[in-house]
Amino acid sequence: MGVLKNHFTDFSKYFPVWERLTPAQRARISENMIFRSVSKGTVVHNGSMDCLGLLMVRSGQLRAYILSEGGREVTLYRLFPMDICLFSASCIMHSIQFELVIETEKDTELWIIPAEVYKSIMEESAPVANYTNEIMASRFSEVIWLIEQIMWKSLDKRIAAFLLEEASLEHTNQLKVTHEMIANHLGTHREVVTRMLRYFQSEGMVKLSRGTIELTGKEKLESLSAE
Amino acid sequence: MGVLKNHFTDFSKYFPVWERLTPAQRARISENMIFRSVSKGTVVHNGSMDCLGLLMVRSGQLRAYILSEGGREVTLYRLFPMDICLFSASCIMHSIQFELVIETEKDTELWIIPAEVYKSIMEESAPVANYTNEIMASRFSEVIWLIEQIMWKSLDKRIAAFLLEEASLEHTNQLKVTHEMIANHLGTHREVVTRMLRYFQSEGMVKLSRGTIELTGKEKLESLSAE
Repeated sequence: MGVLKNHFTDFSKYFPVWERLTPAQRARISENMIFRSVSKGTVVHNGSMDCLGLLMVRSGQLRAYILSEGGREVTLYRLFPMDICLFSASCIMHSIQFELVIETEKDTELWIIPAEVYKSIMEESAPVANYTNEIMASRFSEVIWLIEQIMWKSLDKRIAAFLLEEASLEHTNQLKVTHEMIANHLGTHREVVTRMLRYFQSEGMVKLSRGTIELTGKEKLESLSAE
Repeated sequence: MGVLKNHFTDFSKYFPVWERLTPAQRARISENMIFRSVSKGTVVHNGSMDCLGLLMVRSGQLRAYILSEGGREVTLYRLFPMDICLFSASCIMHSIQFELVIETEKDTELWIIPAEVYKSIMEESAPVANYTNEIMASRFSEVIWLIEQIMWKSLDKRIAAFLLEEASLEHTNQLKVTHEMIANHLGTHREVVTRMLRYFQSEGMVKLSRGTIELTGKEKLESLSAE
């Protein structure tokens, strides 16, 4: 528990309902909470058989995605520092009937409140249950946004938006991202991404080299993605 | 309130946490609840400016859909008797950041718990807040299912599944549904639906006539939709 204690002081900033818990509830969380460092590329939750618990992201980045039978992926949303991951505790609600994979995209530090601990507190505490509601509603909003993108936006605009988002997250215009990774985020095939990136290159928006996509025309990408 | 009183006795069946409310909470709901008959084709909720309240469906059928700027629609899910519509009370949660339209597909009877009444009870009652969580989680599951359909299933399979669902809901193989309506459910264009239905007709799966689609080859439709 040494690691936990070191980080515990700033935990309450990451869990806003902390102030509204009873002393007994706070004790139940702090005695059971786990702090963990997870390296990039680790699957922390894989479908409804897993039920680790509520994750609070201290640093790093994760993505939540679904997987087709044929192995195709599509990213539903990403999680950043201060975000809370609810669906890694999917067993706390009967009505969560879908299979999600959650994977670290960067080296990540997180707190875990074990599922059974969180569930027992949520059942007795209206503030915690309402807070859980708000977390789910914000994931719901992201997923509806995704449906709108898939339904009404063509793939060129979605790829442009993805490249700009990556550049902003990584603070660089030299993206270390493969065509396969982009396809997996957007739920399409690598070949389709490659074809589109070559078109972007011919328009001066990007420069392609092995393992790197350099954004050379951000204004053009921005106006394309905003169309 | 005459109409309300007549129907009030069986209300608690439709609202399973009723038994776990305090007498004061029950009184607050029964004094403020509204019973309403709404005819087919009525928009009962239109985006985040509306905040009618929690709807409980006594009879009839509704659909929840999103709308593109260009006026295209896609159905997110449907509501049937005993279902509860949460997003018609979208103002009860800050994090609900999307615009949904909810419309009756049949003549519908429903109870309405006004949004501010529901919100005040949800804030003080853990059972009600957790029940709200379960409702949202089941809508979330339906929406993830929809994303899977859109991403991994071709349109022929989605149209076949839609026709079979309609036949099952209406208890008839003679569907009174226009090509435009199918397009609006599935988020595509009328022309695309017409082309696919003509192909289905050439394969003996349906028979098309003005205003009617007759299902003549349900086994073929079933095996197509299950592929």
